[in-house]
Amino acid sequence: MFSADTAVEWSQQGKPVILVRRETVPDDIHGMFVSQGILTATGGMTSHAAVVGRQMGKPSIVGAGALDINESAKQFSVGGHTVKEGDFISFNGLTGEVKIARVASKPSEILQVLAGTLPAKQSDVYQRFERLLTWADKYRRLGIRANADLPDQAELAYQFGARGIGLCRTEHMFFGEGRIPIVQRMILADNEADRRKALDELLPLQRDDFYGVFKAMRGEPVTIRTIDPPLHEFLPKREELMVEIAEMEATGKKTTRDEGLRKALALVPGAESDLDRAKKLLQRVEQLHEFNPMLGHRGVRLGITYPEITEMQTRAIIEAACRSHKEGTRVVPEIMIPLVGMVKELRDQKAIVDRVAAETMKAQGVKIKYLVGTMIEVPRGALIADKIAADAQFFSFGTNDLTQLTFGFSRDDVGKFLKIYLEKKILEKDPFASIDTEGVGSLVRTGVQLGRKTRGDLKIGICGEHAGDPSSVHFFHEAGLDYVSASPYRVPVARLAAAQAALSVKVGD
Amino acid sequence: MFSADTAVEWSQQGKPVILVRRETVPDDIHGMFVSQGILTATGGMTSHAAVVGRQMGKPSIVGAGALDINESAKQFSVGGHTVKEGDFISFNGLTGEVKIARVASKPSEILQVLAGTLPAKQSDVYQRFERLLTWADKYRRLGIRANADLPDQAELAYQFGARGIGLCRTEHMFFGEGRIPIVQRMILADNEADRRKALDELLPLQRDDFYGVFKAMRGEPVTIRTIDPPLHEFLPKREELMVEIAEMEATGKKTTRDEGLRKALALVPGAESDLDRAKKLLQRVEQLHEFNPMLGHRGVRLGITYPEITEMQTRAIIEAACRSHKEGTRVVPEIMIPLVGMVKELRDQKAIVDRVAAETMKAQGVKIKYLVGTMIEVPRGALIADKIAADAQFFSFGTNDLTQLTFGFSRDDVGKFLKIYLEKKILEKDPFASIDTEGVGSLVRTGVQLGRKTRGDLKIGICGEHAGDPSSVHFFHEAGLDYVSASPYRVPVARLAAAQAALSVKVGD
Repeated sequence: MFSADTAVEWSQQGKPVILVRRETVPDDIHGMFVSQGILTATGGMTSHAAVVGRQMGKPSIVGAGALDINESAKQFSVGGHTVKEGDFISFNGLTGEVKIARVASKPSEILQVLAGTLPAKQSDVYQRFERLLTWADKYRRLGIRANADLPDQAELAYQFGARGIGLCRTEHMFFGEGRIPIVQRMILADNEADRRKALDELLPLQRDDFYGVFKAMRGEPVTIRTIDPPLHEFLPKREELMVEIAEMEATGKKTTRDEGLRKALALVPGAESDLDRAKKLLQRVEQLHEFNPMLGHRGVRLGITYPEITEMQTRAIIEAACRSHKEGTRVVPEIMIPLVGMVKELRDQKAIVDRVAAETMKAQGVKIKYLVGTMIEVPRGALIADKIAADAQFFSFGTNDLTQLTFGFSRDDVGKFLKIYLEKKILEKDPFASIDTEGVGSLVRTGVQLGRKTRGDLKIGICGEHAGDPSSVHFFHEAGLDYVSASPYRVPVARLAAAQAALSVKVGD
Repeated sequence: MFSADTAVEWSQQGKPVILVRRETVPDDIHGMFVSQGILTATGGMTSHAAVVGRQMGKPSIVGAGALDINESAKQFSVGGHTVKEGDFISFNGLTGEVKIARVASKPSEILQVLAGTLPAKQSDVYQRFERLLTWADKYRRLGIRANADLPDQAELAYQFGARGIGLCRTEHMFFGEGRIPIVQRMILADNEADRRKALDELLPLQRDDFYGVFKAMRGEPVTIRTIDPPLHEFLPKREELMVEIAEMEATGKKTTRDEGLRKALALVPGAESDLDRAKKLLQRVEQLHEFNPMLGHRGVRLGITYPEITEMQTRAIIEAACRSHKEGTRVVPEIMIPLVGMVKELRDQKAIVDRVAAETMKAQGVKIKYLVGTMIEVPRGALIADKIAADAQFFSFGTNDLTQLTFGFSRDDVGKFLKIYLEKKILEKDPFASIDTEGVGSLVRTGVQLGRKTRGDLKIGICGEHAGDPSSVHFFHEAGLDYVSASPYRVPVARLAAAQAALSVKVGD
């Protein structure tokens, strides 16, 4: 399938689906969710398809640059073969091999045991897996958490042995069933009152998700990150709108074929026709358009310009924690502000969080403990970590962004030259897969050292993709971090690597 | 005027032009060149319009977010007024004030003297200016160079007192009269041989420009940066092509109105119709498309993937230097590799430069001295400056990019939240205007210290926009840099600021 919507249609007919896209974007989530695997022509280790696919446990092959994907013609060609919508392809996500054929496959025995469809006693593989990881847990010093955004992911992570959530990305909750229109209404609102009205609708949805994650984690710590991506990610794409408008104008056609676009247009207030609505929407999309979204209006910058978003998210977190508490599970939510590079950014957001938390606890008649901390993912954040630690109760290194900014590499574009860099041995390894200990690592060491200078007991973790990479885990052990937080399916790898790191350092002594 | 092409047409009719654009892009250069001023709705201190405008000495007002610019309708509206193509507006570039009126203006007396239209003796202003700066030169320690891309800019910079070029951006030469089609042929070539053929045509043009710059600098050092911007900047914009194709398909229309696009289409090989050509061109544009061009396939990454570009540029530089040398001007070109973050990147490019330089000198029968150095503009470059200095004969801090990456701010998008950051006092100053001594400055200090640890006499300069900002010049003086390199019109400011820095430190002693 070449679009998220057709992936959903086919899957509703009970057919297995592989989603093939030039690249995936956040509003493909519903299509990714129903797919068996994801194949893209662009990107790398930490691009959207890879991160989300890994998170969901979907085999994903990304950056297959040889594919000539024609999404509107619903086909791709490669090496003289043309593959059309509905044709069978099969995947080996470990090797990146794609077969133009239907190959039989089944879930691993471990997943079968965790799903309850295979008794543990009947699986040698599972028993060995379990024994090895129990040994590993005895020797590791690093705590193991998971990156999980939704209750079912958190549950799986817990079963895989994660004891805590290191990164809950609140914006992924915005893409759930029926939520996108509310988010779009929030963005399209031209005044704070209308924006707050939409946020009020999101509040109970977020709260229930947080409650579910707390419950799955059974009282273990849960770090929740406030909204991170730029708002234009929630709207239709600029170039699609431009093309649509050009077609409408050239042909006098009144509506659009694309369902997502049609729905978004329906939300545009005060316009007569689809063409007017499309033009008005484009105007807003143009306002939000960015040349380099990765370096744009996102993370804490959103919280500062739209404090009402931070307020809503804080309220949802604290209400969920209060409910948990009333039911007997004492959870300590860790509210994490992303992309902080300046002390005053964190201070601004912490003031909002503390005020709203106090109000909410008073209204709920419950007093709970919570922490406010920050991602360290912008080089400046690491360089002034001593000052930031005065206001931050914990740090979590976001090594994906930190790698992007330290190298000046866009994770979504690096595919264009990374292969040649590896061939020419200019780089030994993909720095998005294995942490660059020399450059990025030096900022991590600086951040740890400066942060603990100010606050000796500062809790420090890492929630980038590197948390699931053995050699990187080794580095984080040596750098003195408290925990690593990996995507659920990589939690076992992280547990093992953490033990190996602890043991090899001992042997080294 | 709302497009570069109409700006040129009107200016050819002898009419004064102000170019109004949402944002300018590199292929607007010919329009900027003939304009009296430039007005944009987006961007900030270091966005394209600001940097190029400053370079050319054009009053530029950028990031005027209140303007609702409709380029296709050839008008903008603001505060209830609508201004159409051909209407008069006037500018005060110092205050950012725009008047919807024709206000009389004339060049400053200093420019009149430098242009030879006013004798120095008749201008009190000029004489005082000259006296003050002569005093300044006596006290300053920092050398003063200029950022200049073309011989006439270099000449002006010399007259303003620059003694050397700190940054000659070779790609600006690619936008000259009749050159874009050659560059486009190079990019559209699907094999190395065709790419080399186009490069061979660019060689003499670049060589003559370099020769002109050397000549204007009368033997002072000239730092030439190898190609920096991503190649898609030289091709038509993706969304324009998409809209064009949608229109062609919807209406069956055979050609395009847009002249630039028509010219680019004519270069696409092996296609029957404009529609086919447009589709083929879009395919190449899609291949080159980047989500975050600032973090993409640019700088040294281009030199590594297309070594033939570095070869051509080296040959042009060395041939021009040999010619200068034969004519009695001994120039020492400094070949500067941009965006280096890894030792092996520089080593790869230095090997090419050294090989081609040796070949060229042999062919010319002249032996000249040249240096190979690097920009330090990626945080990783500063962090491992000790290792880079083993191969680099000089450093030049590119503080524009270094600021972007240290903060994670895109210079073209920061306008969306910078105003609020300044209002809320989260930032005291625009870090693209005045260097952030705490964060970016700490990387500069690290780079200087590590670099000189390896190579005690390492020559270190700075060529970002900060070189023309007095408080930043003060910082560079204290950080121990050898020179600052500012745009020609800011050279006098830099001379004065450098003296003030030297004197205030002395007073402080």
